[in-house]
This record gives sequence, structure tokens and C-alpha cells, in this order.
Amino acid sequence: MAKKLEGFNFEQRHGKARVRVARVWRSKEGRHFMVEWNVSISLLSDSIIAYVDDDNSDIVATDTIKNTVYAKAKERKEQLSVEEFAILLAKHFTSFYRQVTSAIVRIVEKPWERVSVDGQLHEHGFKLGSERHTTEVTVQKSGALQMTSGIEGLALLKTTKSGFEGFIRDKYTALPDTQERMLATEVTSTWRYSYESVFNLPQKPLYFTERYLAVKKVLMDTFFGPPKEGVYSASVQSTLYQMAKAVLGRFHDISLIHLKMPNIHFLPVNLSSKDKDIIVKFEDDVYLPTDEPHGSIEASLSRFWSRM
Amino acid sequence: MAKKLEGFNFEQRHGKARVRVARVWRSKEGRHFMVEWNVSISLLSDSIIAYVDDDNSDIVATDTIKNTVYAKAKERKEQLSVEEFAILLAKHFTSFYRQVTSAIVRIVEKPWERVSVDGQLHEHGFKLGSERHTTEVTVQKSGALQMTSGIEGLALLKTTKSGFEGFIRDKYTALPDTQERMLATEVTSTWRYSYESVFNLPQKPLYFTERYLAVKKVLMDTFFGPPKEGVYSASVQSTLYQMAKAVLGRFHDISLIHLKMPNIHFLPVNLSSKDKDIIVKFEDDVYLPTDEPHGSIEASLSRFWSRM
Amino acid sequence: MAKKLEGFNFEQRHGKARVRVARVWRSKEGRHFMVEWNVSISLLSDSIIAYVDDDNSDIVATDTIKNTVYAKAKERKEQLSVEEFAILLAKHFTSFYRQVTSAIVRIVEKPWERVSVDGQLHEHGFKLGSERHTTEVTVQKSGALQMTSGIEGLALLKTTKSGFEGFIRDKYTALPDTQERMLATEVTSTWRYSYESVFNLPQKPLYFTERYLAVKKVLMDTFFGPPKEGVYSASVQSTLYQMAKAVLGRFHDISLIHLKMPNIHFLPVNLSSKDKDIIVKFEDDVYLPTDEPHGSIEASLSRFWSRM
Amino acid sequence: MAKKLEGFNFEQRHGKARVRVARVWRSKEGRHFMVEWNVSISLLSDSIIAYVDDDNSDIVATDTIKNTVYAKAKERKEQLSVEEFAILLAKHFTSFYRQVTSAIVRIVEKPWERVSVDGQLHEHGFKLGSERHTTEVTVQKSGALQMTSGIEGLALLKTTKSGFEGFIRDKYTALPDTQERMLATEVTSTWRYSYESVFNLPQKPLYFTERYLAVKKVLMDTFFGPPKEGVYSASVQSTLYQMAKAVLGRFHDISLIHLKMPNIHFLPVNLSSKDKDIIVKFEDDVYLPTDEPHGSIEASLSRFWSRM
Repeated sequence: MAKKLEGFNFEQRHGKARVRVARVWRSKEGRHFMVEWNVSISLLSDSIIAYVDDDNSDIVATDTIKNTVYAKAKERKEQLSVEEFAILLAKHFTSFYRQVTSAIVRIVEKPWERVSVDGQLHEHGFKLGSERHTTEVTVQKSGALQMTSGIEGLALLKTTKSGFEGFIRDKYTALPDTQERMLATEVTSTWRYSYESVFNLPQKPLYFTERYLAVKKVLMDTFFGPPKEGVYSASVQSTLYQMAKAVLGRFHDISLIHLKMPNIHFLPVNLSSKDKDIIVKFEDDVYLPTDEPHGSIEASLSRFWSRM
Repeated sequence: MAKKLEGFNFEQRHGKARVRVARVWRSKEGRHFMVEWNVSISLLSDSIIAYVDDDNSDIVATDTIKNTVYAKAKERKEQLSVEEFAILLAKHFTSFYRQVTSAIVRIVEKPWERVSVDGQLHEHGFKLGSERHTTEVTVQKSGALQMTSGIEGLALLKTTKSGFEGFIRDKYTALPDTQERMLATEVTSTWRYSYESVFNLPQKPLYFTERYLAVKKVLMDTFFGPPKEGVYSASVQSTLYQMAKAVLGRFHDISLIHLKMPNIHFLPVNLSSKDKDIIVKFEDDVYLPTDEPHGSIEASLSRFWSRM
Repeated sequence: MAKKLEGFNFEQRHGKARVRVARVWRSKEGRHFMVEWNVSISLLSDSIIAYVDDDNSDIVATDTIKNTVYAKAKERKEQLSVEEFAILLAKHFTSFYRQVTSAIVRIVEKPWERVSVDGQLHEHGFKLGSERHTTEVTVQKSGALQMTSGIEGLALLKTTKSGFEGFIRDKYTALPDTQERMLATEVTSTWRYSYESVFNLPQKPLYFTERYLAVKKVLMDTFFGPPKEGVYSASVQSTLYQMAKAVLGRFHDISLIHLKMPNIHFLPVNLSSKDKDIIVKFEDDVYLPTDEPHGSIEASLSRFWSRM
Repeated sequence: MAKKLEGFNFEQRHGKARVRVARVWRSKEGRHFMVEWNVSISLLSDSIIAYVDDDNSDIVATDTIKNTVYAKAKERKEQLSVEEFAILLAKHFTSFYRQVTSAIVRIVEKPWERVSVDGQLHEHGFKLGSERHTTEVTVQKSGALQMTSGIEGLALLKTTKSGFEGFIRDKYTALPDTQERMLATEVTSTWRYSYESVFNLPQKPLYFTERYLAVKKVLMDTFFGPPKEGVYSASVQSTLYQMAKAVLGRFHDISLIHLKMPNIHFLPVNLSSKDKDIIVKFEDDVYLPTDEPHGSIEASLSRFWSRM
């Protein structure tokens, strides 16, 4: 999108962020389906007259962008995945407006979950859960597509089967080696699908919703290991890599996965009085959890032909 | 705690807030139990020399208060409810320090939930859930007790069986009557137990943890109604009252319940162009969810002998 | 507001929270004045038929409450203090509605400050500052008034002239005495005015805005002391008390002041390697600032005839 | 940093985020200088044995990274700019560790401002302001440098001299043209300096602190225009472009500036009752400020030889 003007290089985008929409579909049998989405849209174009000449004639007003989100949610008569809605919006903006060369749509889905009452799923009752399903798609006027799904706020913790030893020791090092520590993280992940055109996508309804649930399960199962023995983690790095490899190994239409897994520390509590009397001696029992500072570990793993 | 000094009335308290502690207990069979608590403690006393005379000899340093939280967590060799831990701390401060006349302990429990892998509960793996269990206890030197438990962040929503009509109409009124709307709220509740002394409490392990789960179930079941038909809500007020009454009716050691249930609006979306062309016409399908403003509805229901 | 029903005690209130309004007044000379307020209103009444009988005929819809905020902001043709607007709203609700026995209005003002360009105040340009002016008023149908103003988010810090020593030492104590430490806090204060009726208030325009600025100045000046020498703080308790006393001593229409001053710790940094080699030795130079845990110190000081 | 392994592409980084440090320097004359920084560091390397072979021998523990921040803060005997500290840290990690090929250091400075008492600057008293100074530097082992400074949270508003008209009209458009509206934004900006090596930087003490203040002034002056007349804004786009151009035009060692300026809407308030009676009619006086949704406008302007 770079343009030369007045001796400078210029790049720009505009859109609407945090458009909130909820959509309810009611089946003939009386069951309600609902989603709540927080939509952010950026439109790219080659036109810069609004910036340079105070001429807005190539600008889609951000208010119009917002209205379109509601209009398109209305049009859809059956429940669809958040990914499908993102693509539908991006396709609209690139095809409806001559000026728009590509559109980037990012959506976060609020984790409303159907409740059960008396052991039965409720027809129209929902409760907010925790981690969030996300997506970001970029669509070009040609129909070329880049598409990622993701997860945010997936906080995981295991109370054992984790250590960290053999790292570099130097004059700034105070951390002892350990083979027994708490391991806690809040996973943020995005994975890229290999579909490269809006004309060539899986047609199965809610395909990407199922994928999301399956990827989440693989990430969690790999993090925790079998229910009885668990699995030893030699570092956040090692666990992250196992998780990434498991996802790419299992899902063949995922070409890249990025994982951001802060090491959220549960510090051992050892306390002594001024006179060295012990107040608390740590025996893998009492911890001080802390959000800051935290270790920051992130990586992406991809098939050869892809690149983040 | 009011004292007269220099011609004024004076009231004070001090303590430590946001002390974070995690505690792990390991069973012989290899199962781990863990809690993460955020503890805030206030100590009350009649001494004001620190304020008036720069004399700290009656002050429990807030650093000491913090250390005590860890020491007491360490001492307990078996899992206990957050309520029991709060009482244990409050008893300590009022009995250990001559100067402390009463102690207020408030704790929020982080909702770590045991995960399942391959359909089996994991021995040491946990994932963060959503709503939070809270408690606040006040203990006097005499052993007199005030004790509440509560819930925070319980976001509930039903897509139908809710209306609001027949309210006051005047020149500031724009809202139409409706028999069909979304009902969404984030419940904050506290309930007071009738136990009035630390010497006279249920001895069953994890008694208050079970109570918490049972109260939450009654609140939710009353909000949603039966899974098939639901239950009609004539107003947030009416639903709140039904929920409060159900809790008091069911649990005889609960003497008061307070419910705060903001009406989180899902606004009907109706959009027209400047020339009155319809962009979106609302048919109980597309909503704009919004956090602000929200209706604020709160009430407490209590047995006669109690008072918030 | 307590009512007996079905064998229980019942108390309730309802209203609208987080109603955001901005109001601009334009002087003939071209200067613009603007405020942005976040208004929360609770209405109290003796009517409980909405709760018990699903009859909303005594309910002021929260949507109507919201509309009224805008209507009343519109009516005022000249800039007014946030306190005056709160009283005006509360008076309206108690006088306009037969059912409303009293109204509680809480407002937080966003700290927009007029900017200067080229050393001159700008006619219509504003920038967001930091601490916030608040107010909460309660008005009865009779005109009886309770009125507080306050400040939120006033973060203050001094790098010296602060110590803490001579406190209780016991087996949980690790903190050493010190005569030199950082003192940091975020002041939250509310002060009550002695005006007890809406019919008997200062008539000077923006009287309470000036009071707010003057109280803030007294609080800050007392916290910091003279610019050259400062003033020694023997404890947060002592400094808090000096601040409260200074306000009551200076402003005769303030009958009570409440101060909440968390002790936000700047921990001395001392670091050693596993082999006790010193990495960092603290010499009143390098600190670790931390939000949690923090000391919590709060107190209120009042003239005899008042009571929080 | 991409590596091939087990048939995949792999990229990784690790470090420590949210390391908080405060540093006080005391002049002989008794004046104290203080900063509070929130430091996040990422280290890049070609080594992946920690990920793949559970071998941590190439890993700098994140705890060591944290300790280094404190050690380096200690070493500096005079106040330095946040940019200088970031470069100093990044140079350390790339030169001290064979394994580290480059280091990215991001710092946010907390806006503590020296207070005045009795019209005189205080020697050791500080108060928290609003917008934040940021920096991010990347240093390669060779000494190659990329360096940006920035500002966060600069909320600006003007009550007039702003319009938006002549934009695209279609069936999703409801927004009327206007020549009079509120313009509010929260500026996030980063600008890149043209220094490309750590060996070739301005030596003047606090050079980059002064630059930061000067850039902020240019941004604000351009946004607001002269104090009396202001300057008309035809769109956020147009104003953003003027601001970017002013910065590049003025500072010759800045090669690129990126501006993110959400259009924070102050919606006109027009309210009618169900029967079309007017409750509030908008006359450029009463607004509803709202954070979501907001327009999102961002752009970067650079000299030809640069690229974001």
C-alpha cells in the first residue's frame, strides 16, 4: 500500500474497531443458537486524497463499515463460524467498493456456552466461559486469502512434572536448577490455514468451529500428558515445541502455528526473620503467583512452503 | 473504632491487600489439590499513636501480615475451603496481637478447575474457569463472627422468555413495552451465614465449598428455568427476587443474600439510511451488546433477625 | 428502605450506571468550556410490586433515567460544577416521581484540561490529565442532602524523607527498621460537606470546583512538605493523619474527610548469585516497584457532629 | 531466525517481560531525579536445542535477564534517557552471550512528573501524569541498530473546527455530512530514528528525552492549531497526515513516523419519545462519548530510504 508523495513514502489503512454484534438463530424445534462477536475491520486502498487533499470521495465512512457488519449478520439465516463471517465481510468490502484493494477482518468471539439444567442442555440459556476463539482474515480484490484462527486467554497450570536445569550460568545468574516446579502459562495461539483463495474453502457447516475445538484439545492434551502420569516438561520451550508439532502433525490444512506462552511464575516461598529464623521453608507446597515479571517464550512452526 | 482526638472523631484500619498465595497438597495416591487465593486483610484497633504521635509500637507491619498468610497456608496439611482459611487467619490476628480488636479478611479464589484428558480427571492438571468464589469474614477478639461467601463474574444470558412492560411513562420515556428481549447480566452475590461465633461452625471438611457450589446451582437454575420451556422474566427485579427467595428457602444456615444484577443491554438493531431506507430491521435476531450504560438493580433479602 | 414480605426483610434499589455525557458551552467571545461525566444513579422507593407481583407500574425505566441525564445537561445554559449537576439530577428524580423517596447520584469527571499553544490558553483544545474529580450526593424527597466530593487516582511519590521503625516484632516479622525509604501511594479521598439541605447551598458559580482544587492542593502540599526540605514521614499512617487534619483545619464547610492511601511498595533491590556473590547491593538507588501486595491504610477524620 | 527442523520451519525468541525498575539519582545539591521503567526484553538466537533436545545449555534464564536489568540500572551513575538505557541493555545481551544474535528491548516509562509547592519545583516530590514515553530498540551482534521512540495514551480533543463530508454514499450509509463535530482521539505514535549503529549516536545527555518532548509538542500544536482560531480538520486522515509531515519536516534524524489515531466518537444526542415528542434536540452541545466502536485510522510516513 506504499505510495510516494511530497518526497515521502506513505502507507495507510482505516476502518472500524470494536463493533459488537450478537446474532440469534432460532430452530423450528425451539432451540436457540447465539454468538457474540467483537469485529474490527481495516480497509486498504491506493487512494490518499483524503490525507493529502482533504477530499473524502474515496473514503468508506467508518460508520458505514459498522452498519455493514449488522446488515451482513442479518442476512445470514443459519449459524456460521466466526471464520466464515470474517471472510464474508472481507469479500463484501473488496468486491462492493472499487477503491478497496484488500480488507483485513479480525473477530474475537465471546465464549458464551450453552448451560445444562437438570442434566439437560438448555434451549436458550447461556453462561460465559473463559478462553476466546479469534480469527483474522485478509482478502484481496482478486479473492486471494490469508486466514488464521486462534485462541486467547487459555490459562493452564500443572503442579508437577516440570523442571528447568542446565541453562547458562554467569555472574548475573541466581536461579538454581530444579526438577520440580509449578508450570503455569496463558496460551495465545494463532494458526494459519493453507486455503489461499475465497473460492476454495471447505463447505461443511461450522467446519472451522470444529477445527478450533480440535486444535484446542490437541494443545491441552500435549501440555498435560496422560491423566495418571502426565508428561515431564524440561522447559516452556520444549513444551511449546511439542504442542506446535502435535498440531501440525494432526491437521493437514494448517500450515503454520504460532504459540506465545508466557512463563507465569509461581515463586517458591521461603521466608526468614531478620535474625535468620525460618518463617516458611519451601517444600513444594506454598507458592507466590505473580503476573510481572514473567518469562516470555514464543515461537512459530510451519511447513516449508509457508512463512508468517 | 471511633476515637476522639484533638477535637475530632477518628476511625482507622490498616492491613495488607492483594497478597497472592497458591497452596498445593499432594495425596499419597498421587493426586494433587491446589488453590490460588488473593487475600486482603484489615486489622482494627483502638490505638492511634502511630497516627498522632509517630509511635509505631502498636502497629503490626503490613509485611508481617503478608508473611503470616504464607505461614498459615504452610501449616495446614489438608485442603480447606477459602472460608475456613479466612477464619483461621482472622482468629490468628485477633488472638496473637493484644492490640488487634478485630480482623476483616477478604479472599477471592482463582477458578482453577481440574482438567480431563481422555475422559479421565487429571492428577495434576488445571485450567482457569470463569466466575470466582469470594469470602469475607470479620472476627472479634471475643470470637464473635460475621461471615459471608459470594460469587463474582457469573455472566448469564437467555435469548428469550424475558420482557419489560407497564412501567412509568412520562416526557422522558422513549422505551417501548416488550414481551420479548434478550436478558443478560453479570451476577455479583454475597450471602451471610448465620454462624455467629468461631467456636460454633460446621466441622465437615470443605463444607463451605459445597455450599458455594449448591448456591450457584440454585441461582442459575432459577434464572434459566427448566431446560425445555425456561421461565418468563417480567423484569430483572422479578428474576432477582425469585433467585434470592430460592436461596433462602433452600439453605437454612444462610440468613441474608444480596444480589447485584446489572441489566447488560443487548439493544435491538434497527438501521436506516439518511433517506429512511431500511438497512437493518430488527426481528429478534441482531443485537448490539453494550457494557455502558447498564441498568443497575440490586437488593438483599434476609430473615427477620438479620440485617446487612 | 427495608420492607417485610413473605416472612423476609427486603431492601432494594435500581437505576442506571455508567451514563456518559459530554457538554459543551460556547461563550460569545469564542471560548469553549467542556466537561465529560460518567453518571450513575440509584433510585430508592418503598414499592416492591415489581419484585413480588411482576407489576412494573411503580418503576422508572432505567432507559428513562438515562434520557433524563441528557435532558438535564441540555437545559443548563452555563457551565456548572459536577456537584451541582449531581444535586440537580437527584432533586429532579425525588420531586418528579411520587414513588421515589430518595436518589443517589455518583459522577466521575474525566480530567480534560485546556491546552496551551504558544504559551496561550487554547479556545477549544483539551488534553486528558490524570487524577479524577468525583462526587456522590443523596437527596431525600424532603430536600435533605448528603454530599461528598472526592478525588481518585492521585498518585504521589517522594524519594526520601520517609521511614518506618519501632513496630511490633514477633516470629512472623522480617522487615527491618528504616529511616530512609521511598514513599508512594495512590490517594483516594472523599470529603463530606456540611450542607444538609438542597435549599441551603453556596450560590457562587463553580464554588465546588474551586473547593476541589483547593483541597487537592492542601493534600499534596501536606504530603510533600516545603520544596527544599520536604517533611519527614514516620509512617503512611502519620502522613495520612496530617493530610486529613490540614483539610478539616482549613475548610470549615467540610465536616469529614476519608483518606485511603495504599502503601505502594518500592522494594530495595538486593540480588546475590547462588554462591552468594553480590549482583546488586541496595544503596537507596535501585528499587522494584510493585502493585501487589500493597499496604492498605485508610482512615476518616470528622468534626464531632458528623459520622461516616 | 528461521531454522529448518524435522521437516518444518521454526522461529523462536524468549526473554522477560514486565520487569519493573525504579532508579533514583541524588545530586550533591540535594535534588533527586527518578525514573520508573517497565522493561521487556527478547533475545534471538540460532540455537533450538532447548526446544528440540530438552538441552538448556544455550538458554539465558529469564531470571538472569531480569537480574541484569537491575544490575545495569545500578551501574549507571547519572540519569539517562529511556532510549539510552534500552540500547545499553541490548548491547550487553548481544555482546555478553555468544549465543545471542540480536536483542529487542522495549521500555515504557511511567510519567512521574516533578511537583511544585509554593511555586517552586520540589527537590524529591513527584506526581503521576498521563501520556507515556516508550522506546523499542533492536541491536544485532554487529552493532547494527533499529531504534524507535514513541508515545502512548495521548488523549486529545477539540470541540470544534472539525468536519467530515463528501465520503462514499451507498445503501449501507446513514451518516450525514457535517462541518461541525467534536474531534477526539488517543494518539499512539512511534517514530524511527535514522541511527543505524550503536557506535554512532548523539552524545548529548538526555538527547532523546528532549526529542520526545519536542515531537510531542509538534504533534499537539499541529492537532490543535493556533490558540485563537484553531485549524480546520477535514478528517482524522487529513489531521494525521499534517501531524506526520510536521514531524518529518522538523526533525532530520527521524526517518519514519507511524501514527495510530482512533476516532473516538462523541455522538450527537437526539432523543424522542415513542410518540416522536422531542426529549433532546442536538445543537452542538450535548454528546454521548463512546469507546466502542471507534474509527481506526493509522498511517506511516517515511523518507524514501526507510521502510517500516
